Amino acid sequence: MSLPAAHDKPLFTPGPLTTSATIKQAMLRDLGSRDVEFIAIVRAIRSSLLEIAGVSTMDGYEAILMQGSGTFGIESVLSSTIPRDGKLLVIANGAYGERIAKMAAVLQIPHTVLRCAEDTVPAPDEVRDQLGNDPQITDVAVVHCETTTGIINPVTEIGFIAGGMGKRVIVDSMSGFGAIPLDLRAASVDYLISSANKCLEGVPGFSFVVCRRTSLEASDGNARSLSLDLLAQWRGLETNGQFRFTPPTHAILAFHQALVELAQEGGIAARAQRYQQNYRCLVDGMAKLGFEEYLPRDLQGYIITSFRYPEHPQFDFEQFYSLLNERGFVIYPGKVSNADCFRIGNIGRLFPSDVRALLGAIADSIAEMGVTLPVTSAR
Amino acid sequence: MSLPAAHDKPLFTPGPLTTSATIKQAMLRDLGSRDVEFIAIVRAIRSSLLEIAGVSTMDGYEAILMQGSGTFGIESVLSSTIPRDGKLLVIANGAYGERIAKMAAVLQIPHTVLRCAEDTVPAPDEVRDQLGNDPQITDVAVVHCETTTGIINPVTEIGFIAGGMGKRVIVDSMSGFGAIPLDLRAASVDYLISSANKCLEGVPGFSFVVCRRTSLEASDGNARSLSLDLLAQWRGLETNGQFRFTPPTHAILAFHQALVELAQEGGIAARAQRYQQNYRCLVDGMAKLGFEEYLPRDLQGYIITSFRYPEHPQFDFEQFYSLLNERGFVIYPGKVSNADCFRIGNIGRLFPSDVRALLGAIADSIAEMGVTLPVTSAR
Repeated sequence: MSLPAAHDKPLFTPGPLTTSATIKQAMLRDLGSRDVEFIAIVRAIRSSLLEIAGVSTMDGYEAILMQGSGTFGIESVLSSTIPRDGKLLVIANGAYGERIAKMAAVLQIPHTVLRCAEDTVPAPDEVRDQLGNDPQITDVAVVHCETTTGIINPVTEIGFIAGGMGKRVIVDSMSGFGAIPLDLRAASVDYLISSANKCLEGVPGFSFVVCRRTSLEASDGNARSLSLDLLAQWRGLETNGQFRFTPPTHAILAFHQALVELAQEGGIAARAQRYQQNYRCLVDGMAKLGFEEYLPRDLQGYIITSFRYPEHPQFDFEQFYSLLNERGFVIYPGKVSNADCFRIGNIGRLFPSDVRALLGAIADSIAEMGVTLPVTSAR
Repeated sequence: MSLPAAHDKPLFTPGPLTTSATIKQAMLRDLGSRDVEFIAIVRAIRSSLLEIAGVSTMDGYEAILMQGSGTFGIESVLSSTIPRDGKLLVIANGAYGERIAKMAAVLQIPHTVLRCAEDTVPAPDEVRDQLGNDPQITDVAVVHCETTTGIINPVTEIGFIAGGMGKRVIVDSMSGFGAIPLDLRAASVDYLISSANKCLEGVPGFSFVVCRRTSLEASDGNARSLSLDLLAQWRGLETNGQFRFTPPTHAILAFHQALVELAQEGGIAARAQRYQQNYRCLVDGMAKLGFEEYLPRDLQGYIITSFRYPEHPQFDFEQFYSLLNERGFVIYPGKVSNADCFRIGNIGRLFPSDVRALLGAIADSIAEMGVTLPVTSAR
């Protein structure tokens, strides 16, 4: 039997990611969604997610899987839990914060947006002021690692303030969960959303929510969707261990294997360490080539990094992307609104040796475009 | 490398289904969602779906993939397309029709339900009367093959009437599409929803919608959800071939292979023929064992069949299910509201030889329970 996975290009993207061969091989089965083995796998996954989050059902937390991409998971929280007379404060310093605001608008949830520049983190004091000035706010949503830039937001400080003021705290930790530590209690998190297909290295197909049971139970009657009803999904899983609607059984089998391999790697500390090694290898190598990071180093996480386009008339991103693709490497376009950037992710089944191979291909591609090395960055 | 799939139990369920080994092996790759190869695969899938539906973009039809289970696909149609001042007529003779009604209620879409008994089909004349009596109705939703019982509803007659009266027609053809013929033009279908994981024999992870482009374009501004916004999803796919939010890349690769294998089998006519052979083998064998079908034969499709519990004090469904499971066969519980039934599906990668093996296991299990053969049915 052929193993085409071995020949696929490594993905230096925010997802879908490169996953291990054994994670993909876990999908070579058709299990019924009512099968006792499948139900046990779902139960084990939910339990592992709580453990990774550093909480447990004993402390009043629950883990819920939701079909669809990460955005579906966020919408399940917003549309199911914010009361009809509630108001959401969205903190935004990038495209994913803006997406939450857009989602609230489509859902007709009253909301206000506290924006700051994409290369700065939101100031906790401003959040305090905003909450003080607008007592109608009941819920606060903030992005942990803003994948737009790779910036890490001060979720703990913001959550602590918001929770202390009696607000519910919703954290989009899509690309952070499982690699960037977050103490859910200290950050007063009511709902944290992430995806199978980020730092836990599963394949795409579902998202998950780790939440406070009391908040979840208090959300009864707030659902604006049947498919994305978070409380109903939880009740279904609790009642008979089953999803209400057909689960992505294969993606769930892959995720179960991904969690086994996370434990084998040494848990989330070891996972974070590997990502940090990838990141340092990447930024050191890119600096030698002359590339400039978009973010100041102290704000930059180790998940995904935005680099400014080189300041050279021969540089063209689409061509650069294609040249790297021909060499067998997939990078990602930028998403920053006020600067020309591209992005390189270093999560998934990637190691410093993969990053070094990418750096070689970048040097070759830049040279082939006629851009002089070291490059100088456009500002 | 091991092939655990070969040892998995055949699934005589409405899904997840048994799929071929090669369909699952197509998932042994990590493709980026912006990858040209992946984009070409999505384009090919959309084109094949139109072909299977017997329509094309030239006649004004479009195919759109949507993350999540089939229910997510139905909700994407309801929540994205029904106007704010619209009203939906739901035709229900089973749990899936009722689910559409429940969805409309949660979405706060004005609606009315035309119900008939689960063992009868809705009368097209009653639909005409209802539409005549309630001019506020703008949209009609009907289930093609109601998986609750396996009944085939007169979608063509109902759609013809509703379309002729200027109503939009929404068809839930979850378990029918690809095996039960339906002429979208004759049935005046605006939106048909099905899933990757039914008669087309992919793995679960997304649904799809085949729709009239003019209806879709006219739905602008009606979306009540960001994730499930059907028009925005279509525009994204048309603009750059990409999903707006992370697609289930592996399930999509499997589906692409499933469509290749559908063509190899001889297309939907050959697929329908195999399912019909499975069905006849099943009902003939079950009749010999004494089991009675819930539905009259002339209303029964060849997708899934409801059988009444045997009238014997020793019969217990949970035990029966477990005994079959121990013998390596998975069947499905009943969903009919007014009779005790179980269900046996015969779609997926199953052949008459699989059905015969199941029949042997059923005979053995019934005997082990101490139920005399041939059984007599409880009415």
